[in-house]
Amino acid sequence: MTETLFTKIINGEIPADVVYEDAEVLAFCDINPQAPTHILIIPKKPIATVNDIEAEDAALVGKLFVVAGKIAADAGIAEEGYRLVVNCNAAAGQTVFHLHMHLLAGRQLSWPPG
Amino acid sequence: MTETLFTKIINGEIPADVVYEDAEVLAFCDINPQAPTHILIIPKKPIATVNDIEAEDAALVGKLFVVAGKIAADAGIAEEGYRLVVNCNAAAGQTVFHLHMHLLAGRQLSWPPG
Repeated sequence: MTETLFTKIINGEIPADVVYEDAEVLAFCDINPQAPTHILIIPKKPIATVNDIEAEDAALVGKLFVVAGKIAADAGIAEEGYRLVVNCNAAAGQTVFHLHMHLLAGRQLSWPPG
Repeated sequence: MTETLFTKIINGEIPADVVYEDAEVLAFCDINPQAPTHILIIPKKPIATVNDIEAEDAALVGKLFVVAGKIAADAGIAEEGYRLVVNCNAAAGQTVFHLHMHLLAGRQLSWPPG
């Protein structure tokens, strides 16, 4: 897999507004926020798209949900609510080919989701 | 947790257009589709919202991504792409309080995602 912008953020080569980090997961603010709160949650392991998630990655990618819940709780937005979005390939507008979960909150999110 | 519509679908008490099932996960077509392909992927375990996912549920909820990838591959939409969305509570418009992942595909999905 080609190194992406997110690899550089993980390695500290490009600055980011980090809101959560552990050995496996990093979360930072989206530089083009679409809501008052817009955070990207990524596995440090470079998985390009949802199509590239292997069965043995389940616990790792499931942890993205656990971290989303923790970030929401810490930010005081858990009860009000938030939307989690993962785009895969062109039809969804995926632009960085390192798996990432968007967490959007702080406004009423409409339906359909794009 | 109160029994939801999805518990009845899991138990076969309400019919659904099922596209995938195993011991832990069920996937079926959304009755109000927002795209040519609109499938809901749920854990059979009744977890109300993302806020209720415990650390020990990581592998289970991560499997939702694995199943999404499999469904997309089987439907021939994996390369074109798709969007995965999970709504938590009112700000995101969550209406059924049993965790569910939306898989939307078959059209260009816009940004922001709602």
